[in-house]
Amino acid sequence: MKLPNSLEAVVDAFRKLPGVGSKSAQRMVLCLLKEGPSAMETLGKLLQAAATSVCFCEICGGFADHHICTICADQNRDKSLLIVVAEASNIPTFERSGRFRGHYHVLGGLISPLKGIGPKQLKIRELLRRLEDPRIAEIVLATNPTLDGEATAVWLARILEPLGLKVTRIGLGLPIGSDLEYADDLTLDRAMDGRRPIN
Amino acid sequence: MKLPNSLEAVVDAFRKLPGVGSKSAQRMVLCLLKEGPSAMETLGKLLQAAATSVCFCEICGGFADHHICTICADQNRDKSLLIVVAEASNIPTFERSGRFRGHYHVLGGLISPLKGIGPKQLKIRELLRRLEDPRIAEIVLATNPTLDGEATAVWLARILEPLGLKVTRIGLGLPIGSDLEYADDLTLDRAMDGRRPIN
Repeated sequence: MKLPNSLEAVVDAFRKLPGVGSKSAQRMVLCLLKEGPSAMETLGKLLQAAATSVCFCEICGGFADHHICTICADQNRDKSLLIVVAEASNIPTFERSGRFRGHYHVLGGLISPLKGIGPKQLKIRELLRRLEDPRIAEIVLATNPTLDGEATAVWLARILEPLGLKVTRIGLGLPIGSDLEYADDLTLDRAMDGRRPIN
Repeated sequence: MKLPNSLEAVVDAFRKLPGVGSKSAQRMVLCLLKEGPSAMETLGKLLQAAATSVCFCEICGGFADHHICTICADQNRDKSLLIVVAEASNIPTFERSGRFRGHYHVLGGLISPLKGIGPKQLKIRELLRRLEDPRIAEIVLATNPTLDGEATAVWLARILEPLGLKVTRIGLGLPIGSDLEYADDLTLDRAMDGRRPIN
């Protein structure tokens, strides 16, 4: 016994979050209690409100509050660039930098014969329908550089290139701030393949 | 714009928790979303349930689900030892190790002339009433080793010693695993004061 059961239940739930151990989960709960009785209530309400209101954008498949997400609804974004990602959670990663002004398309997974996921299970038909928009000039395949991510990118490139669109793969190579000494062979291979003139 | 508003509200709330930055708060929210629509709902409900049900034990002042906490209700605990702490959140810290089998008393703060908190604002009358129980043999003053914590311990010792009870202060000194080189002078002073024969 450490805390009342209702609090232990919250500690257990916090502990399942990424990067949260049992000690920090307990510290979080105690911090909420210290802030006063309403802090925990407020967080609970926010979570429930989010759980009820969050949905997937009908156009891109990203997270949205309503039918259409704010990115798809934004008329000031670059209509010529479409970034294809595997998961809705990949979009905030790109948006964090604020440098990308294009649109997104969420596949909802990756082609994976081992897991029995083929192209039909992904939102590829929806992607092809979006590509009927003549303003789209370039598609960036931004799936993870994993076995499935690479295979999906190659498969998509083969499908999309005949459509006369520019299809690119997101750059693979050494991450900024890394050390050549610790780079694995495959990353080095890709970094060499991806070498570019310095301009 | 990064996430829908309802999710950003949760990210903001998570960010206020100890040890959670904006990046890990976002990762937590995305992790909840990945787990399925019910994970966020469940956590929200747990928090609300905890906020509604948690209260303070009528005996010791610690967190409780009902009127009396499980520690005070436990008949197998050592009735002779009473640990006096400043906050209810200090009790789980002691309970974590599972080594302490005594009871607790929460003062609800520390004497602090600067903050205008005197003995009357603390649960000292309640403490004196509990000490009428003849089974209590020793009181451990376990307030933090800070200015206010030390002052409160000294003040309490002066009040409690005339009652004929054994009053002790929790050990102060070098924490286990630390290095003499990094110990501050005050800690070293207290460590020397607290030296004991090796038995």
